[in-house]
Amino acid sequence: MADNGVEINGARSLIETLVAHGVDCCFANPGTSEMHLVEAIDAVDEMRGVLCLFEGVCTGAADGYARMRGVPATTLLHLGAGLGNGIANLHNARRAGTPLVNLIGDHAIHHVAYDAPLTADIEAVAKPVSAWIRTSRTSEGVGLDAVDAIRAAMGPNPTPEGGIATLIIPADCAWGPGRTVDTQTLPTIDRRRVAADDVVSIARHVDEQTVMFVDGNGLTERGAIAAGRIAARTGCTLYTPTFPARVEAGPSIPHINRLPYFPEQVLEVMGGYSRLVLAGAEAPVSFFAYQNLPSLLVPDGVSVERLAHRHEDVEQALVDLADELDAPIVTPTGRPRPEALTGDISTRAIVRSVAAHAPDDCIVTVDSGAGGAAFPSLQQTVRHTFLHLTGGSIGQGGPAAVGAAIACPDRPVLALLGDGGAMYTNQFLWTAARENLDITVVVFSNRQYNILDVEYRRLGINDVGSKAASLFDLSNPDLDWVALAQAQGVAAEAARTADEFDAAIQRGLASRGPYLVEANV
Amino acid sequence: MADNGVEINGARSLIETLVAHGVDCCFANPGTSEMHLVEAIDAVDEMRGVLCLFEGVCTGAADGYARMRGVPATTLLHLGAGLGNGIANLHNARRAGTPLVNLIGDHAIHHVAYDAPLTADIEAVAKPVSAWIRTSRTSEGVGLDAVDAIRAAMGPNPTPEGGIATLIIPADCAWGPGRTVDTQTLPTIDRRRVAADDVVSIARHVDEQTVMFVDGNGLTERGAIAAGRIAARTGCTLYTPTFPARVEAGPSIPHINRLPYFPEQVLEVMGGYSRLVLAGAEAPVSFFAYQNLPSLLVPDGVSVERLAHRHEDVEQALVDLADELDAPIVTPTGRPRPEALTGDISTRAIVRSVAAHAPDDCIVTVDSGAGGAAFPSLQQTVRHTFLHLTGGSIGQGGPAAVGAAIACPDRPVLALLGDGGAMYTNQFLWTAARENLDITVVVFSNRQYNILDVEYRRLGINDVGSKAASLFDLSNPDLDWVALAQAQGVAAEAARTADEFDAAIQRGLASRGPYLVEANV
Repeated sequence: MADNGVEINGARSLIETLVAHGVDCCFANPGTSEMHLVEAIDAVDEMRGVLCLFEGVCTGAADGYARMRGVPATTLLHLGAGLGNGIANLHNARRAGTPLVNLIGDHAIHHVAYDAPLTADIEAVAKPVSAWIRTSRTSEGVGLDAVDAIRAAMGPNPTPEGGIATLIIPADCAWGPGRTVDTQTLPTIDRRRVAADDVVSIARHVDEQTVMFVDGNGLTERGAIAAGRIAARTGCTLYTPTFPARVEAGPSIPHINRLPYFPEQVLEVMGGYSRLVLAGAEAPVSFFAYQNLPSLLVPDGVSVERLAHRHEDVEQALVDLADELDAPIVTPTGRPRPEALTGDISTRAIVRSVAAHAPDDCIVTVDSGAGGAAFPSLQQTVRHTFLHLTGGSIGQGGPAAVGAAIACPDRPVLALLGDGGAMYTNQFLWTAARENLDITVVVFSNRQYNILDVEYRRLGINDVGSKAASLFDLSNPDLDWVALAQAQGVAAEAARTADEFDAAIQRGLASRGPYLVEANV
Repeated sequence: MADNGVEINGARSLIETLVAHGVDCCFANPGTSEMHLVEAIDAVDEMRGVLCLFEGVCTGAADGYARMRGVPATTLLHLGAGLGNGIANLHNARRAGTPLVNLIGDHAIHHVAYDAPLTADIEAVAKPVSAWIRTSRTSEGVGLDAVDAIRAAMGPNPTPEGGIATLIIPADCAWGPGRTVDTQTLPTIDRRRVAADDVVSIARHVDEQTVMFVDGNGLTERGAIAAGRIAARTGCTLYTPTFPARVEAGPSIPHINRLPYFPEQVLEVMGGYSRLVLAGAEAPVSFFAYQNLPSLLVPDGVSVERLAHRHEDVEQALVDLADELDAPIVTPTGRPRPEALTGDISTRAIVRSVAAHAPDDCIVTVDSGAGGAAFPSLQQTVRHTFLHLTGGSIGQGGPAAVGAAIACPDRPVLALLGDGGAMYTNQFLWTAARENLDITVVVFSNRQYNILDVEYRRLGINDVGSKAASLFDLSNPDLDWVALAQAQGVAAEAARTADEFDAAIQRGLASRGPYLVEANV
């Protein structure tokens, strides 16, 4: 019975259980098998339903939302095919360690055996991206299944860090009689504190020959301040991995370098040190394999020691280490905002304008090399949160911006996207317009998969054949991003010079609601 | 050694083997791990590479291509995340029984253990949609792996009807030394002929109390003509399933009804007969489960007999049955082209105009109820090939149109799409523009997931709450399909009345190259 004495069904118990645990935002693309779940979302006031017109937007938005709030978002997806459309951004969320609860509708249990057209092995689709999977078997049990899903998402069981929980709800488990779950509070992520002895042991070795990789919750403001103390005291050098899930940065926060992308560059960095300390990070590996380069980018003679795993309390370990070292508080100086460039448009000019005008306390999402290039410039000039593309599957930055903007309605969001990446999930623009989200989108419109042209030439090919070139080329026809945005209700303009871009980004940032600037680099 | 005496690598042996077997079209969205495969496509003149800006377009296009040519197309996709983006249309292709070879790049074998960001369990992602999966283990073996993939796609092993073969190629198997495969010919689909005794047995029972479901290669012109003879001789009624993969139809071909969608409608049809004969089809089941309706839609008292399975030679079985019945050739009369309607725009008016103007020998793809509504009108008025949405995952009609147009460059293609469905894979427009494909797209722009509104009300809900309504609603903001098309290089116009639509569709059909008409129904 619900409070009002009305019998509830399984769907209602599921949605009520979620909101009772503080899980109250659902990025949805439902189908017929999810109609009772829609009815329950409609009935439970606290649950917000956000429609996305492609499931990759749902999953990328849920990732961005949960990275910002630390509370799982839910997705509502339609059987195996709908989940399939969401796989790529679930892969990114898995790499980010994001807590997330997928709600996947399925046929009624008795209907599966008839192999109707949409029948698929949903658990198999979910497996590569899920830390936890369950198919509900009874409508009375769906509420408790939701509790287990939330707990699995928040860790530490069944995996040390939790992650993606996928709950599959057969239609009869949604429409059958439900059972109200006693209200419980959301479990917090229980990060194990690193043992004092381990901290002491690391403290003995950190020196100017040490490079320390910081990731996980070591990249909070408190963690970064502790890391800065350690660096100031010992002379060690700090790096984040190439693609950390979330970084707090700005002029008031000690500077942490970001590891470069290509393996030769990483090896060059590593060659300068004799010791690597892992603080929530892993030893560096090449993003891809190359014929004459190692996979593991730790040169001979560099010893590797671990301060903390990512699922442990990296922030506290850094504080404990700084205290053990008796390291003083350092006051970062930051850098003044740069001046915008004039003349020809270029990635450099765009990054300069972004660093000149990005509002304090903004959130930045990316899924391109050019977007990533903004990170070092922003790091010391603007207080912000940076959400990287963690899993290498492009098409994440736009959806993540949607989720971040919904999680943090008072913070402006900047999405710095490549044209190739943004095209995969261009439907995020529509949800940004519908929800009137304060997102300024910059599309680096270079009209090619630039990284592929670079990688192709790395094979030693100088003369790219016409068929190969056509497979990297986004021109013929040119994509008109202004039209793509306006078609989905988002105000937009194009910039062809650095000056035009500088004016356009300021208009975008000044407007409430979504705004897209196509930068024709 | 290749013919020119140059050492070839695994990638080259793979692509050469594919084209030697007549598999010469690749719908591609490559990444870094596929660079050697791109190099090989570039080097082998006979292989066509078609760039798609989202993997669901690759897989849907490959499905449309192979349904039309009867020869596998290939896709080229980037690790697990790229394959994930293609899953939904692979699900549809699996339901269609389409022969297809996925080429999925992976990290070099030695690199997988380092769990670089894009590492994923690709075989697990492929499993729900693949009849055959292999990860190559040596560069010398990749060519022979391709032969096995083609054979698996064409059947009859390992599954009776072949289907989707997924070949995963680690980067070192592409860049290492390859071995030329002796040229072989493409295996043809070897459909078993139904035994004469079984045909004779069925012949005894077919009468006016019989309904016969025809599917598979029973829906070729020859198959339909044989089915028409059987119906004329015995008085039986002919139906296709609700969503057959490919139907040849037109005024010169005997009329075969299409089974309706909703279970009550199917039960009403079935209630008129005492015997169901399956000719390449299965007994009808409800698309979704409902609380007070059965899954299997065969009423008590209706006996079920099988003439042929879908993987058997249904066409020949129908011919044999017609001969056994000594059935005469019938000359269908067809119907005259309808007159276009005037006044308000409606699905009915659009279907009328399409039937009035669709060119003879056109190919029609759909992924919406409104598009499907065109089928009965076209069936008796225009000689055409109709490709249905087989697996229920919308977003298939546009990509399938791309593949069909590439497979049959001399045949005009009509894509009749819902706005919701077309949005999932709107990137098909760009490939249509780049390849200058003769596709006329009609978008039924009703600004809602209409089927969900219908299904929601079927729950007995008359008063749809605002949150529920928002999850079915594609307005706020309205999608501007003209701008979406033009942004991707496709000429487009909107129609707000029946007269405007009638003029617009004629302009679209008259133009070579892609053209989109947004029908504001």
